[in-house]
Amino acid sequence: MIIVLEPNAPEKAIKELIVEVKKQGLDVHRSDGEAYTILGLVGDTSKVKEAPILSNEWVHNLVRIQEPYKRVNKAFKPDPTIIDVAGHKIGGDEIVIMAGPCSVEGREAMIEQAIAVKKAGAHFLRAGAYKPRSSPYSFQGLGKEGIEYMLEAKKETGLPIVTEIMSIGTLDEFRDVDIIQVGARNMQNFALLKALGKADKPILLKRGLSSTIEEWLMSAEYIMAEGNPNVILCERGIRTFENYTRNTLDVSAVPMVKRLSHLPIIVDPSHAAGLWWMVSSLSKASIAAGADGLLLEVHPDPAHALSDGAQTIKPKHFEELMTEMDKIARVMGRYIN
Amino acid sequence: MIIVLEPNAPEKAIKELIVEVKKQGLDVHRSDGEAYTILGLVGDTSKVKEAPILSNEWVHNLVRIQEPYKRVNKAFKPDPTIIDVAGHKIGGDEIVIMAGPCSVEGREAMIEQAIAVKKAGAHFLRAGAYKPRSSPYSFQGLGKEGIEYMLEAKKETGLPIVTEIMSIGTLDEFRDVDIIQVGARNMQNFALLKALGKADKPILLKRGLSSTIEEWLMSAEYIMAEGNPNVILCERGIRTFENYTRNTLDVSAVPMVKRLSHLPIIVDPSHAAGLWWMVSSLSKASIAAGADGLLLEVHPDPAHALSDGAQTIKPKHFEELMTEMDKIARVMGRYIN
Amino acid sequence: MIIVLEPNAPEKAIKELIVEVKKQGLDVHRSDGEAYTILGLVGDTSKVKEAPILSNEWVHNLVRIQEPYKRVNKAFKPDPTIIDVAGHKIGGDEIVIMAGPCSVEGREAMIEQAIAVKKAGAHFLRAGAYKPRSSPYSFQGLGKEGIEYMLEAKKETGLPIVTEIMSIGTLDEFRDVDIIQVGARNMQNFALLKALGKADKPILLKRGLSSTIEEWLMSAEYIMAEGNPNVILCERGIRTFENYTRNTLDVSAVPMVKRLSHLPIIVDPSHAAGLWWMVSSLSKASIAAGADGLLLEVHPDPAHALSDGAQTIKPKHFEELMTEMDKIARVMGRYIN
Amino acid sequence: MIIVLEPNAPEKAIKELIVEVKKQGLDVHRSDGEAYTILGLVGDTSKVKEAPILSNEWVHNLVRIQEPYKRVNKAFKPDPTIIDVAGHKIGGDEIVIMAGPCSVEGREAMIEQAIAVKKAGAHFLRAGAYKPRSSPYSFQGLGKEGIEYMLEAKKETGLPIVTEIMSIGTLDEFRDVDIIQVGARNMQNFALLKALGKADKPILLKRGLSSTIEEWLMSAEYIMAEGNPNVILCERGIRTFENYTRNTLDVSAVPMVKRLSHLPIIVDPSHAAGLWWMVSSLSKASIAAGADGLLLEVHPDPAHALSDGAQTIKPKHFEELMTEMDKIARVMGRYIN
Repeated sequence: MIIVLEPNAPEKAIKELIVEVKKQGLDVHRSDGEAYTILGLVGDTSKVKEAPILSNEWVHNLVRIQEPYKRVNKAFKPDPTIIDVAGHKIGGDEIVIMAGPCSVEGREAMIEQAIAVKKAGAHFLRAGAYKPRSSPYSFQGLGKEGIEYMLEAKKETGLPIVTEIMSIGTLDEFRDVDIIQVGARNMQNFALLKALGKADKPILLKRGLSSTIEEWLMSAEYIMAEGNPNVILCERGIRTFENYTRNTLDVSAVPMVKRLSHLPIIVDPSHAAGLWWMVSSLSKASIAAGADGLLLEVHPDPAHALSDGAQTIKPKHFEELMTEMDKIARVMGRYIN
Repeated sequence: MIIVLEPNAPEKAIKELIVEVKKQGLDVHRSDGEAYTILGLVGDTSKVKEAPILSNEWVHNLVRIQEPYKRVNKAFKPDPTIIDVAGHKIGGDEIVIMAGPCSVEGREAMIEQAIAVKKAGAHFLRAGAYKPRSSPYSFQGLGKEGIEYMLEAKKETGLPIVTEIMSIGTLDEFRDVDIIQVGARNMQNFALLKALGKADKPILLKRGLSSTIEEWLMSAEYIMAEGNPNVILCERGIRTFENYTRNTLDVSAVPMVKRLSHLPIIVDPSHAAGLWWMVSSLSKASIAAGADGLLLEVHPDPAHALSDGAQTIKPKHFEELMTEMDKIARVMGRYIN
Repeated sequence: MIIVLEPNAPEKAIKELIVEVKKQGLDVHRSDGEAYTILGLVGDTSKVKEAPILSNEWVHNLVRIQEPYKRVNKAFKPDPTIIDVAGHKIGGDEIVIMAGPCSVEGREAMIEQAIAVKKAGAHFLRAGAYKPRSSPYSFQGLGKEGIEYMLEAKKETGLPIVTEIMSIGTLDEFRDVDIIQVGARNMQNFALLKALGKADKPILLKRGLSSTIEEWLMSAEYIMAEGNPNVILCERGIRTFENYTRNTLDVSAVPMVKRLSHLPIIVDPSHAAGLWWMVSSLSKASIAAGADGLLLEVHPDPAHALSDGAQTIKPKHFEELMTEMDKIARVMGRYIN
Repeated sequence: MIIVLEPNAPEKAIKELIVEVKKQGLDVHRSDGEAYTILGLVGDTSKVKEAPILSNEWVHNLVRIQEPYKRVNKAFKPDPTIIDVAGHKIGGDEIVIMAGPCSVEGREAMIEQAIAVKKAGAHFLRAGAYKPRSSPYSFQGLGKEGIEYMLEAKKETGLPIVTEIMSIGTLDEFRDVDIIQVGARNMQNFALLKALGKADKPILLKRGLSSTIEEWLMSAEYIMAEGNPNVILCERGIRTFENYTRNTLDVSAVPMVKRLSHLPIIVDPSHAAGLWWMVSSLSKASIAAGADGLLLEVHPDPAHALSDGAQTIKPKHFEELMTEMDKIARVMGRYIN
């Protein structure tokens, strides 16, 4: 951590600041340049209190050198984390495909859809029982009942299931769920993250719409800091000025996360663009960029899906895509089927 | 609502789409242009199911004409909403100033700080008992105890209090709080918004870091749809590419909200820039733009504040600012003191 | 084009507006809804004067239905444009690779580098003679001399060349250049675009850092409107809040442009991320997303390149990448080698 | 400047890097932390070649400590620059108002409009002779003829004039213009900036739509580096995800520029929001934030203006605004009238 002082900072103020910083148990290396005096702080700066520094009127700037995350940091654990869920090794050579409808719509529908995605080759069944919707007038999900239907579909097909949690109070209902998803809007719901840090299940942590990669990794740190090491990151598009697509898929996040962290990362191309005809291109691009898996919206009749039909592909389209994706995976030294 | 069809859409597909839309109880006006055929949907389009339209392969685009919000919409309630809290009429001619430290730090400190901001002219005491922090290693707030200290400070000074809620489970603790704040990170925590829609207290709803004004108003709609009409909007800076400031204060949101909605809007200049020396300029700009109030971080010793010292001003600075702001308020036909 | 009127718009004002619009040669379809009156404008709306509408105090909103571009629009020319340059059919089945150093650094260096990228399989030599640099203190390029060295390298290797123009005054110097590049910062230098619209050479038009896809296509329209049909679009990353990467590669722009326009689109993964170790992942992702080619920075000694060394890969790395990319291209039914 | 090395960087590589950096004439302070080794570079780092550092595979990060600009930097010239144009001291206590139509529309119109804005109290006449338009089908300005009409209007009213240059080739036509404007789209047209750096006229430099404050100051540095010290910065809104307004006025840029630079800064509230009814609020906010002036679009008949009618106010509205703005200016210890 580096403190840059104002050019006209008086000697007295500099000395007082040095004393202040040393009180926090850090060493200070002072270096007087032509224009600026610089103080280098040496020691464990991850817990430095920044207030006494930033509120000092003679401080021009405070520059952080180290990443603020530790448990998720590849620098401290170089080997990749591989999470085994029902025999699928997420973060390993297999590229894991999670597919299903946006929302659970009913018992029969859920089972049929599970059978359809399994037939097409999906490894996990995904669907939403609790749905975050920007309008109070939109379908809000079947809740607890929805999870039950998913569990029945799991029994029927053997597919492990992934579904989203929206508040701590419902955690008990996720007992038999295989992976608990945290949605983009809850990426910084810290109370929820702490609770999930105490759960003994893998957490699929979606990136917030406007979250930097650093903030996203810090949210993963919240979960890991409470004792749960099994976090799967999921890139799902960020908010930008471009509005031909609903969000902008940040495909660079895949190699970046691979460099900074040991955690696996998957991509959700359905939510990223919000356009069904673009899902195929973005899925292939994600695998070519090195993603460990995909989260895909698949529905036999998107026109009558209860939510997000615009970004949903049909099982037949999905099946063809699986074949193409497997070929790209094999170019990358990995596999899907 | 307007459906634009692909240039080469076959007649059969167009007719099927018209039938589909009419089933939803809407009238359709067809208009065949040079390049595109357009379908205008007439009737109550606020509940249209978009999936059958957007997932149709011959649909080029769907254009929404009306705002999706109703209860917050000025078109349906032209008179401004004025919320009376402890005699202060928020949204009226008085510009309401809410000031205090970022976090509650202890019993004595809270009372002293309340006395200091009251002396400088603040109308409300603000402080954080529950603190959303991006790092799990930062101070997380005193919680319930913090609210109790605020209530003691209220008793001592008579200042009504504003503080942030982070999860539904703690709602009972806010019984005697005057205004409940929803932070930027929870703006789309829909479960929380619904619960607050049933509360009988005014809600201060901060804009999310990357929320459009439309999404923000939709979150207010969530609260109002459950029966609570007392929502105060709070602009606090949005995320942009500029990084000399922590966020970019969207001062235009003030006149825009005033045009679209009847709800009052205040500004938080402390979080917007994240820089104490900029608070004064942004406070004055906000009032000149028409804001109904300000939420300000004030602390007697920012260097030793437990959080956010970098953006906090001292009581003496605050007192001078109050005088200047009152002068600008009076140019605007309003007042502070 | 749709005009949405304010809920309380007086009848007299509506009628006057209709007269005003009809004067512009358009038909008006009026439709009175519950809350809003809507006017649909029918006819050639591409030249509508918006001022009389937008400055009218009773107009709530003006919604454009059709894309504002014509010549670049796939709706008016469904077949893809294939541009033949020195036997390479850009936009066809071959994926075209343009590679070379960021800047021309000298005669010998240029020739050596051309030989190296040719050996690795590149189809075009790219390099910068004129360099846009954000600092006046950075190397500004060799200018005219640089173009001459590129032409010598072309003679030596047979590689056609691509280089950037920065001002109209130098257009003559590009006589023997095969493709003229317009950089991101000049994407809306309209005087330059018009001049290039009269040139008889293919133009490589980079997307501006903060340009929407629509604005980018409008800049291509500028070139085409002057008579030059040979425009190659180049996605190179957009500016977002994420700062771990220099820009955010908008990989979705590839399928989006393919859907909206008949023009070919290539990707520059070097500038997108600004990180050499990410070039490989982003190159493969771009091809998997459907790009028609790549623009890559390759230099034998990035550490001593005169500019942009941070994002430059070495010829050996490039050669390996060519092999991997060809495999992905073949999965896509295309080829590189 | 600080180099952060990868945790596993081998000793040999570190030593080679130190040698490399020392060759550039800098001193290196090495500091070995728990996780990272850090190299502090001491000396004149403004001309450091970054390539050998950033392309080194063992470099984790390079952190710049000092601002890259010098001539515009307040650290090197603490006193504010005050630019005297026709007796108006821009950057002094007077707040300077530049007003007029978006485009020059004709001889008579120009003179009438100049008389109207003068009567309302404007200090400068602004209008566009050359117009950057995103569509090739929009009115492109009267060019040279337009400047002549402005000069006639100047003769008639005594108002000094401000108008935009779009390419170097037309510089001669600006001989009698009082202030030459560089538009947002040309902020990084470096060839143009260099030419204007040799001119003996004040330059009004608009901020690019997606330019950081640092890049904007670097563009001012381009002009100053060529010998022209008279640069007036103009904030005009930046591109963000919010689309209710055309751009987002970054009002924080005003106090930020005042802190970083000695140059004067004005605001263009007309282009920022693109909405005539918001101009008044944003004008007052800008003055309250400390702006040295405003650039305003005023036209007697916005509905029939040849461009940008949507954001243009009428002379009567402008006159009232002048009175209100003067009152706010006086609260700030400044004045307009």
